[in-house]
Amino acid sequence: MIALFTDFGLSGPYTGQMKAVLAGHAPAVPVIDLFADAPAFQPYFSAYLLGAYCGALPPGGVLLGVVDPGVGTDRLPLVVCADGRWYVGPDNGLFELVMRRAAVVEAWTIDWRPDRLSASFHGRDLFAPVAARLALGDAVPGTPVPVDRVRRPDWPDDLGRVIYVDVYGNALTGLRAATLGDDVGLVAAGRRVKRARTFGDVSVGEAIWYENSNGLAEIAVNQGRADTVLRLAVGDEVAIVD
Amino acid sequence: MIALFTDFGLSGPYTGQMKAVLAGHAPAVPVIDLFADAPAFQPYFSAYLLGAYCGALPPGGVLLGVVDPGVGTDRLPLVVCADGRWYVGPDNGLFELVMRRAAVVEAWTIDWRPDRLSASFHGRDLFAPVAARLALGDAVPGTPVPVDRVRRPDWPDDLGRVIYVDVYGNALTGLRAATLGDDVGLVAAGRRVKRARTFGDVSVGEAIWYENSNGLAEIAVNQGRADTVLRLAVGDEVAIVD
Amino acid sequence: MIALFTDFGLSGPYTGQMKAVLAGHAPAVPVIDLFADAPAFQPYFSAYLLGAYCGALPPGGVLLGVVDPGVGTDRLPLVVCADGRWYVGPDNGLFELVMRRAAVVEAWTIDWRPDRLSASFHGRDLFAPVAARLALGDAVPGTPVPVDRVRRPDWPDDLGRVIYVDVYGNALTGLRAATLGDDVGLVAAGRRVKRARTFGDVSVGEAIWYENSNGLAEIAVNQGRADTVLRLAVGDEVAIVD
Repeated sequence: MIALFTDFGLSGPYTGQMKAVLAGHAPAVPVIDLFADAPAFQPYFSAYLLGAYCGALPPGGVLLGVVDPGVGTDRLPLVVCADGRWYVGPDNGLFELVMRRAAVVEAWTIDWRPDRLSASFHGRDLFAPVAARLALGDAVPGTPVPVDRVRRPDWPDDLGRVIYVDVYGNALTGLRAATLGDDVGLVAAGRRVKRARTFGDVSVGEAIWYENSNGLAEIAVNQGRADTVLRLAVGDEVAIVD
Repeated sequence: MIALFTDFGLSGPYTGQMKAVLAGHAPAVPVIDLFADAPAFQPYFSAYLLGAYCGALPPGGVLLGVVDPGVGTDRLPLVVCADGRWYVGPDNGLFELVMRRAAVVEAWTIDWRPDRLSASFHGRDLFAPVAARLALGDAVPGTPVPVDRVRRPDWPDDLGRVIYVDVYGNALTGLRAATLGDDVGLVAAGRRVKRARTFGDVSVGEAIWYENSNGLAEIAVNQGRADTVLRLAVGDEVAIVD
Repeated sequence: MIALFTDFGLSGPYTGQMKAVLAGHAPAVPVIDLFADAPAFQPYFSAYLLGAYCGALPPGGVLLGVVDPGVGTDRLPLVVCADGRWYVGPDNGLFELVMRRAAVVEAWTIDWRPDRLSASFHGRDLFAPVAARLALGDAVPGTPVPVDRVRRPDWPDDLGRVIYVDVYGNALTGLRAATLGDDVGLVAAGRRVKRARTFGDVSVGEAIWYENSNGLAEIAVNQGRADTVLRLAVGDEVAIVD
């Protein structure tokens, strides 16, 4: 399986052209759109999102991750193997939380270059062909690199920020709920919200936070949009209060 | 074939994680996004939409339907077989019009539970594995239930409401055009619109209603957006006038 | 491979129903969403977009192109073979730039009609079954037509208009960058923008134009949205200045 994690959107030209490349190289491998609307130009926020959602990838699976504001500069192209799953994308921190939470990690810089490498779309020209080859079991077309050289040790383990707003207006934070007590409140945009188990535990229109289905602390309004009710957007700070 | 009918959107984490589960269980079965933007939290409106669009499902096909505001409460998980097609999802009325319009209907409550069942994402944890097993020809992992117990007899056969606004701004109603005469007008948001055969029959900017390609009465403005021109949104009442 | 190029969007009913038809006829053929948000009702602008993005199609591949404001009128249904790739859709100019830039072109009008042909959704009822048959290697179900009869010779080779705004707010023009000098500026919405190689070459917030990864001149703001900063929308004129 190849899972796509990008800020490309699905409708426009980017995801489709990557899939055409993948289908050309590995037509029998299922391709899954895991996220197509990761925070645009924000590998930092995207890294915490990916850290929580990479569990969808089976052993041997390949995640093609492209949130890449530095495309066209000299940032390195990277392959990471973390606990038997493959990650292909730019060396900009996108895979930091995946690496940090894995038991066994290896990394490579990609040496292979295509005949034609555009300045602005390495997802299609460089990363997709490499992802397809890894999905087919080929060797990494690159050079091993010490993992320390591609880590971001100064990033926190959990991030007190809104990192994604979903289709219902729920605001996902970069905080893992398991690190927070049951009586802990979250303060975002000046409003304090208490913890609940699920939407159904509170009345319609009430704001809560709860552990979402991937373990993150998520701020929601029952049958309403937290982003509009609480005026939340990606990047907003989220404080932990007793 | 497995068809998805949800209010999850395609870009975010929900549809992708369900597809990863389906690909893990049944990698050779085609998965089709039939609707990813059914009316959010609205199984009532969604039921009329699904009743009109379930024809895309071939015999033996499985529709995984998740519009599920009651997730985490005690609403039952359901499997329905209607005229040889399978429907998997919550017992909240979503499959009411499918059942009502089928000649042969059977129903089961799902007894099987996964090792890990999140409180807020039964689509991924419970319904997707069941849908995959049905697509592979497995027996229903549940207990037969009398169909009367999962029906909504008080719901109307046709619904005089806007149930969906499409990408062009066309407003789909829950009324089947075949139940309406050629001279019948529809009144929505205080405006009367007359029937036409297709966009091409009226001048640019004119509002009409017509039988759409799935048999519903649909309100449209030729080369314009009915939702903005007529100020229509999902849930608005649509009256039938002579 | 079958690539979809439409103005249908992905979420709603249109793309899903077409894919259900394709999966029914040709379940083993990969289907790629190349564009689902081509300019709505605008085969003219869409033709220049398709001319730049058809390179994703491999030899023998089929592009199902449906931007079809004339559906339900007497416009002809068309099959084009251009340099070994197939194009299926309405005869409204959508394939003009593909034909113009190909070395070998043949064309057919589609004679086959389905048992049930809706007035408003030929993409599902007529074009999708034909695309599936061509992808399986069947003969064209139509009559050869002189290519001159389905061309638009009065359309320009390059179009000085915004033809698409992407997910990042970048404005794609119908001008191929290779036809423009390095010192050429573009004027859109009263603002002159100069050429750069990529985003990374200018400071954050600065507007440029550059050759995008498919060869078009594209107007962008580094880590900003050109559509809002410069107030650009599809259809806006783009002038070339020294």
